[in-house]
Amino acid sequence: MKVKVGGEVKEYQTVWMEEDVVCMIDQTTLPFEFSIHRARNVEEVAEAIMTMKVRGAPAIGVTACYGLAQAAIQNCSLPPDELKALLSKVAARFLATRPTAVDMKNMVTRVLETCEGLYSSKLIAQAVLHEARRIAQENVEACRKIGELGSSLISEGARILVHCNPGALGTVDYGTALSIVRFAHTQGKNIFVYVTETRPWLQGRLTSWELTQEGVPHCLIVDAAAGYYLQRGEIDVVLVGADRILPNGDVINKIGTYMLAVAAHENGVPFIVAAPTTTLDSSSSSLKVEERFPEEVTHVKGYNPELGETARVRIHPDVRAKNPAFDVTPAKYVTLIVTEKGIFKPDKIRT
Amino acid sequence: MKVKVGGEVKEYQTVWMEEDVVCMIDQTTLPFEFSIHRARNVEEVAEAIMTMKVRGAPAIGVTACYGLAQAAIQNCSLPPDELKALLSKVAARFLATRPTAVDMKNMVTRVLETCEGLYSSKLIAQAVLHEARRIAQENVEACRKIGELGSSLISEGARILVHCNPGALGTVDYGTALSIVRFAHTQGKNIFVYVTETRPWLQGRLTSWELTQEGVPHCLIVDAAAGYYLQRGEIDVVLVGADRILPNGDVINKIGTYMLAVAAHENGVPFIVAAPTTTLDSSSSSLKVEERFPEEVTHVKGYNPELGETARVRIHPDVRAKNPAFDVTPAKYVTLIVTEKGIFKPDKIRT
Repeated sequence: MKVKVGGEVKEYQTVWMEEDVVCMIDQTTLPFEFSIHRARNVEEVAEAIMTMKVRGAPAIGVTACYGLAQAAIQNCSLPPDELKALLSKVAARFLATRPTAVDMKNMVTRVLETCEGLYSSKLIAQAVLHEARRIAQENVEACRKIGELGSSLISEGARILVHCNPGALGTVDYGTALSIVRFAHTQGKNIFVYVTETRPWLQGRLTSWELTQEGVPHCLIVDAAAGYYLQRGEIDVVLVGADRILPNGDVINKIGTYMLAVAAHENGVPFIVAAPTTTLDSSSSSLKVEERFPEEVTHVKGYNPELGETARVRIHPDVRAKNPAFDVTPAKYVTLIVTEKGIFKPDKIRT
Repeated sequence: MKVKVGGEVKEYQTVWMEEDVVCMIDQTTLPFEFSIHRARNVEEVAEAIMTMKVRGAPAIGVTACYGLAQAAIQNCSLPPDELKALLSKVAARFLATRPTAVDMKNMVTRVLETCEGLYSSKLIAQAVLHEARRIAQENVEACRKIGELGSSLISEGARILVHCNPGALGTVDYGTALSIVRFAHTQGKNIFVYVTETRPWLQGRLTSWELTQEGVPHCLIVDAAAGYYLQRGEIDVVLVGADRILPNGDVINKIGTYMLAVAAHENGVPFIVAAPTTTLDSSSSSLKVEERFPEEVTHVKGYNPELGETARVRIHPDVRAKNPAFDVTPAKYVTLIVTEKGIFKPDKIRT
């Protein structure tokens, strides 16, 4: 993705490796400050995922894969059996950080499988790093393809509503729903994007930051205002990403997606989900909706112009807050699902 | 309403007059600080309404009436015709501050009508003050009655979702939807309230503050999480107030009400609107949905624990934000409307 840093435009991916260090754009300092976070061991990688320095189903999946590569490199002096056991433990540690999205499980399983026939720790470390890099590159390709395919669904002059940050920052590059927006914009369609701020974590400001980098015209609205614009016919299509897509086409995504889908359905506005096939949950494993820290609701991080620095302020009284991070949108409210393999009706979704 | 101030519990109304000063609980410093704002002239009253030191359709209506009384008292040395002309001008000034709610128009019209037969400025001032006080007292009575009537709709153990602050603070006392909650709680029903935070202005923190004063068990959620709890069957009834109810039963209320009503309807959860009859728009006058300052979306006021003081921080990048304050919920999504005159199906609503 393009990032303007000190007057220069540079190309970045969301997460990458430098030797045995997992590097990532720190999403907790954006949009106020662009900085790189370097995670040097398993706990730092787990902490970065847990505290959402990196977030988005494909991005945290790739981060966990790089975390496995890091663990393999740092521990390749162990006997191969011990290294394999360690990698399984590290994988479980990562999987426990964010239980809802399925990409991490799918990707990490693939990485662990590459070790199976190998009985040299050095070869295991090489294979794990190679597979992690391949998964990352495949995600870039899938997201590019999603944008290319999905942009056929976007008309000239379309007014698009995007919820959360299904952007380059939520993947390795391009994004899912935002990849469609990028392609439509590059094709010269005069699109306009309504960005929901996406409480509590305010991922909308990441989407707004990405769209600003790309020069896509957009505005920010509160989540509750989406219905207002849908009802008035001021939105032509809703685009969202996904954290997990069930075999029946139900979509698990950022909290608020369900109400948005119901309101779009009620107003006859197409509701389109974009996700790589790594987001498909073919196993129908049990779904746990992550309940995150109540402080994400009661406090916000912002920029204090008087102090000239970021500040975390309490915005609610000291009462109990509940913070479910995802909801389930039944397939009947989903118009189409765009993956790198094609555009599907939700009941026809295939890996 | 009960307010705990320095260890003591005191009774307050939202707005009242002391001689020619319009006094109000300052809703911009809550929930972090309880303070009284004193508006000493027309511009200070208009500014208090505009900046939401006082908010809520009935509360701003009564504030405008007190503002007229203040203007009449302060200008009773004018000849009666000039005083009447001045009062009309002041009324227009107040009505321009918040164009969507209809209570202010209904109430202010009533105050101006009391002047009609009077040809002494002293009598006009007395009549205006008397009428303003009567309107305030009628609002208290109406809200009490709404609570009494509406509480019959609340079952033992009900889990109630409340959007915005349809509370004592949005009226003169008791509230509309929250009056129902107060009565149900006083009757010993073991209710639990889900409070939506209500972005952008975060009126949910006022609701939470009121419920804390009353000892009603509750939790805060982000607006987008309402659908999650509705879908899971964890909410038995949705209660909201109104800023204007059209003769066909359509309800204009805080942004987000529409999506909430659609989601409640989709899940078979009763959606109940509570409002005094001053909120009924019998004239079907043209509806203007107020678009408020974008800074309400891009900035929030909170409490900075490090500084030990309130701070306003920017939470979004410096991009265009759109901030419609209200939306229209069609009557078909409204189960019942509770006024002080009874409980109505929306298509049977009467003044």
